[in-house]
Amino acid sequence: MEMTKPFDTLNASKGKRVVIELTKEKRRLIGTLKAFDQHINVVLEETEEYLDGELKSKLGSVFLRGAAILYISPAN
Amino acid sequence: MEMTKPFDTLNASKGKRVVIELTKEKRRLIGTLKAFDQHINVVLEETEEYLDGELKSKLGSVFLRGAAILYISPAN
Amino acid sequence: MEMTKPFDTLNASKGKRVVIELTKEKRRLIGTLKAFDQHINVVLEETEEYLDGELKSKLGSVFLRGAAILYISPAN
Amino acid sequence: MEMTKPFDTLNASKGKRVVIELTKEKRRLIGTLKAFDQHINVVLEETEEYLDGELKSKLGSVFLRGAAILYISPAN
Amino acid sequence: MEMTKPFDTLNASKGKRVVIELTKEKRRLIGTLKAFDQHINVVLEETEEYLDGELKSKLGSVFLRGAAILYISPAN
Amino acid sequence: MEMTKPFDTLNASKGKRVVIELTKEKRRLIGTLKAFDQHINVVLEETEEYLDGELKSKLGSVFLRGAAILYISPAN
Amino acid sequence: MEMTKPFDTLNASKGKRVVIELTKEKRRLIGTLKAFDQHINVVLEETEEYLDGELKSKLGSVFLRGAAILYISPAN
Repeated sequence: MEMTKPFDTLNASKGKRVVIELTKEKRRLIGTLKAFDQHINVVLEETEEYLDGELKSKLGSVFLRGAAILYISPAN
Repeated sequence: MEMTKPFDTLNASKGKRVVIELTKEKRRLIGTLKAFDQHINVVLEETEEYLDGELKSKLGSVFLRGAAILYISPAN
Repeated sequence: MEMTKPFDTLNASKGKRVVIELTKEKRRLIGTLKAFDQHINVVLEETEEYLDGELKSKLGSVFLRGAAILYISPAN
Repeated sequence: MEMTKPFDTLNASKGKRVVIELTKEKRRLIGTLKAFDQHINVVLEETEEYLDGELKSKLGSVFLRGAAILYISPAN
Repeated sequence: MEMTKPFDTLNASKGKRVVIELTKEKRRLIGTLKAFDQHINVVLEETEEYLDGELKSKLGSVFLRGAAILYISPAN
Repeated sequence: MEMTKPFDTLNASKGKRVVIELTKEKRRLIGTLKAFDQHINVVLEETEEYLDGELKSKLGSVFLRGAAILYISPAN
Repeated sequence: MEMTKPFDTLNASKGKRVVIELTKEKRRLIGTLKAFDQHINVVLEETEEYLDGELKSKLGSVFLRGAAILYISPAN
């Protein structure tokens, strides 16, 4: 069974909409994954910020520190 | 007595369903372990997210940061 | 598809107004991005500090530790 | 007086039942110590999870991140 | 456009009064910036400590760990 | 004035009873200091665990992670 | 203007009484600074521990982990 590396999976999401759950509060960002590095610092575009499931603000481009991230998942 | 390394155990779970207990809240993910690296960054597929034991959402593919993980255990 | 690095995005914001959401409380700084380094230590100028959405103080120049930062986004 | 290293003590517990107190909540795992590495990532087998002293679940094999561990002690 | 490095900005504050917001509680120190290193460990002199905006104590010289610092800003 | 290094002081406590205050809750361990390493991972023997000043359990041998330790002091 | 390094300041406090504010609770230690290393692990002697400003216990010699320290200041 051939296995991929975690970063391959992130690469496959580049240019696509992703949900990023943050470590702080019940906060998540939904945006287009533009770039990431080995510290999982991430750049999103056309980003929406949700708090407790409610749209809180539209942020445009966001540079997000890896330490702020719980998980990244493709947006449905 | 021959002893295995912790990562050998994770390797044996690749392709199988695992429960991952997170450090944040009473939150756990159940999914198929697709990949992991030395920082214990993990990729799950067909993932379900539980909060306080209740199914909260179906996430599909998830890239999970190692720092977010308390433990990983095979799903029963 | 050509992809940029996260730090390229930060570079493009130099000299411009940015919003920085902090890890502590509901606290954010808005200021002109003057400089940053690989630890994402940041210098802002003409900085305003907001707490729960209310302007709390005008800080002028601020040296902000990377560990204090959740995300950085261009100010609208 | 001849002194041992901390990891020698862990080695002596391999194959035996240990109690692991976690950093999160009043949570502890009791299981058979199968493996550990230099980051104190640990593998337990036939693991029971206790919350506030009450048996919460039987987990079988568990890969536990070192950062999640407060202390490890032989089970009585 | 010529950009400075974050540490250049700190250097320019040496010998001057600065406000340092701490990560712990609503706590800040105001003092004369005497020295700092690459971990942003800082030495202040003639330091005043404020809690929730009220002067709590006069500390004289203070060695402050970088991990305790949210941001550093020139005192008005 | 001749100064010792912090680890010299720990060495001098080997084989003696020490109090270890933990970072989690009002929790302390009292035991015989058997071993420690450069990460201040510690092994205690004949260990007693106290919570809010009350004896909670007798643990025998304990492997304690350095990150769990606030301070170590000789027991009176 | 000649500037000193932060550790020079700590060196100048060796053998003298210092106040150390801890990251945990409103807790501080007052003792004679005996030794420290590059991680700011510190040894105090004739140490008194204060909680919310009240003397809680006399500890004698204390090995204090750097991560537990907010700041160090000469005792008045």
